[in-house]
Amino acid sequence: MEMICLKFGTGNGLTDMASKLFVLNPGSSTLKFTLYEEVVHPVNPQENLQLVASGMVDRLGSAEAALTLDVKGKTAVKKSVPAESPESVIKTILDALRAEISNDGIPENLIRAVGCRVVHGGDHFIHPTLVTQDVLDTIRAYAPLAPLHNPLAADVITAIMALLPGVPTVAVFDTAFHHTLPPVARNYALPYELCEAHHLYRFGFHGIAHQYVSSRLTECIGRVGIASKCITCHLGSGASICAVKNVLSIDTSMGLTPLEGLAMATRSGDVDPGVLLYLLREKGMTALELDDMLNFKSGMLGIYGLSGDVRDLETASERGDARAELALEIFAYRAAKTIGAYAVVLEGLHAIAFSGGIGEHSNSMRHRICRRLAFLGIDLLEQPEVSVSSPFRISTGNSKVEVWVIYADENHQIAGEMTDLLK
Amino acid sequence: MEMICLKFGTGNGLTDMASKLFVLNPGSSTLKFTLYEEVVHPVNPQENLQLVASGMVDRLGSAEAALTLDVKGKTAVKKSVPAESPESVIKTILDALRAEISNDGIPENLIRAVGCRVVHGGDHFIHPTLVTQDVLDTIRAYAPLAPLHNPLAADVITAIMALLPGVPTVAVFDTAFHHTLPPVARNYALPYELCEAHHLYRFGFHGIAHQYVSSRLTECIGRVGIASKCITCHLGSGASICAVKNVLSIDTSMGLTPLEGLAMATRSGDVDPGVLLYLLREKGMTALELDDMLNFKSGMLGIYGLSGDVRDLETASERGDARAELALEIFAYRAAKTIGAYAVVLEGLHAIAFSGGIGEHSNSMRHRICRRLAFLGIDLLEQPEVSVSSPFRISTGNSKVEVWVIYADENHQIAGEMTDLLK
Repeated sequence: MEMICLKFGTGNGLTDMASKLFVLNPGSSTLKFTLYEEVVHPVNPQENLQLVASGMVDRLGSAEAALTLDVKGKTAVKKSVPAESPESVIKTILDALRAEISNDGIPENLIRAVGCRVVHGGDHFIHPTLVTQDVLDTIRAYAPLAPLHNPLAADVITAIMALLPGVPTVAVFDTAFHHTLPPVARNYALPYELCEAHHLYRFGFHGIAHQYVSSRLTECIGRVGIASKCITCHLGSGASICAVKNVLSIDTSMGLTPLEGLAMATRSGDVDPGVLLYLLREKGMTALELDDMLNFKSGMLGIYGLSGDVRDLETASERGDARAELALEIFAYRAAKTIGAYAVVLEGLHAIAFSGGIGEHSNSMRHRICRRLAFLGIDLLEQPEVSVSSPFRISTGNSKVEVWVIYADENHQIAGEMTDLLK
Repeated sequence: MEMICLKFGTGNGLTDMASKLFVLNPGSSTLKFTLYEEVVHPVNPQENLQLVASGMVDRLGSAEAALTLDVKGKTAVKKSVPAESPESVIKTILDALRAEISNDGIPENLIRAVGCRVVHGGDHFIHPTLVTQDVLDTIRAYAPLAPLHNPLAADVITAIMALLPGVPTVAVFDTAFHHTLPPVARNYALPYELCEAHHLYRFGFHGIAHQYVSSRLTECIGRVGIASKCITCHLGSGASICAVKNVLSIDTSMGLTPLEGLAMATRSGDVDPGVLLYLLREKGMTALELDDMLNFKSGMLGIYGLSGDVRDLETASERGDARAELALEIFAYRAAKTIGAYAVVLEGLHAIAFSGGIGEHSNSMRHRICRRLAFLGIDLLEQPEVSVSSPFRISTGNSKVEVWVIYADENHQIAGEMTDLLK
């Protein structure tokens, strides 16, 4: 195992005896992690969790898999990671954390509990759940609905439980925040018994992000504990929008799977079911080909042809590429329509938040979306004052609806939910 | 051929020498028709077409096929219809018209031109079109996109042209009104070249109805010739909503096929593409089974289980049936969301119109939809004064958006477009 030390510190001065929470956040090809220390902040409960270290393993499962570790304000480590198994990957992370943070025996002394994001909890898991073998089996049973995510999450949890025996591990589900969807939003207009038999409901995704962002947003607009009508737009390569009433999800654009809703980087989002039937019946496409096309070759990539990354599309559009411009406009158009629909669902609107890679970083895309919302009284600052670490407002003082950019700190949300469960 | 005469007149006093227009409007199992006389009304061009006779053949293609013919204010005929061929059906209609209206030789003397509604014109037919063999071939080529409608329309046109040689026949397309959709609404987020090769675009449907209704609506609200932002809701067993700016369609809820959009009587409308992939890949459904389920066993029928007819559902809901109530609420919820989305697309809203069987007749459903729109300033009369023959307003004087009920007189629209073409 080759090691490339970029910066290398000799400790972080934290009390090793403190209870630490270790959060794992597996994506389809990445594994992000954060180590928090629990403290009691005298004023702001948001500050009860202090960041100790964070990092990620990139290109998971490939020979180029690499670990990046940042220990707050002090060190950064980058090293290659053996590709063999989830257990070896997580062992590499724990060894790196041990080397950087403490000479004491990690893990037992240091890590009080582990939390792991799981994408699909179906209608089984609507709260953070202490992992048992039964829980792991059920997470694996949802694999057909989240083939890129659930099996990996189950592998990651199995590995960390083997490496940290006796440390409670909590699964936090991306679908759970949406369990408050009323039947009118949750049910499809499909045969009722079929939906019951196969659990065909709108479960929604990005729930951890929407929950964190909507909770911060109500703080930002001074509506904690009072009625609030918010729309959170989590826009990344996967993208979803959520209608949030009094910090409860009441509708969201993703459905049974993360394929529904907005046009995304490579996913089609909503499309006439008749298009799929036409391609199956008249053009002889197989279900496998259709799946591959809708998930990986559609969305903004499908329209532009060369990339689904908004940064590439914006560059191409500035050069005058009409298809790149169309892809960006379709993304914005469908997001704006969803916001209009959710303003109806919420019967009004106090605030909108943008999060996710596109939501946080593309001022241009936020303007593309919001200039379609002028009739809702929305007015954006041309050049907002960007903050990296905390929410920042991007609407003018005249805007009838406040608009904010909020970093969706999923791992913080997971750690918070873990501590609530373990209390 | 058995004849049952209900009422039987002896002539209608009209000048047989006048030019008459014969409109045929084939549905999936009905054939409606209207005979108009062209006059020149001194004030209102809407009155240039005067109704001579109208009727329909019900249960088309079955042994129970029956013709009903009403000659305005005078006669009603009902008789059985031979099921053999479209030509024999249309000959029965023409014979009945001849018997009722004139002793002169129909058709040559009486019928100046024929118009026929065609559901799918693809991107080929964006205007009313004089039918030639090439046109007929192209209408048939769109059969895979409208299997219940286009072949029948082609058969009907072929039959009437054989029966009335030399009489010009005009095809009027239900997709044509939507040819003004901008690319941002028209294109799916699918691979661009695939869409080009197979014409996978949002064509929209009910265009003849949306065009007629939006045109009348701008008259009702006094905005003829000035900027107008209207939403037309054509709600029947098939249902679609249209965003109409300055009497041009700029977005609509049906797509490549009439399966997209709202929950309908038996059609699913929008559904996560991932649900379809799941049923194909994990549950082993075939494309044919999926097609049958989404078109004929879903929508309100799928949710309730016993009927997709709003009248049945309302009765069941009043009896306390929870699934009937859920089906009605899902229909209304999705319609209201679409209206919210289109208010964004239009950047504001002057008026909404309801048409179609549900839109015209269910005060309860209009209230279910519009009570979700209070934040747009919409306020309905509890019990509006219903008019059968002309548009009637159902919003209160306080409503910021006018709401009207307008009978979608498709055949009048078709006759009007024919005369424009033939001029």
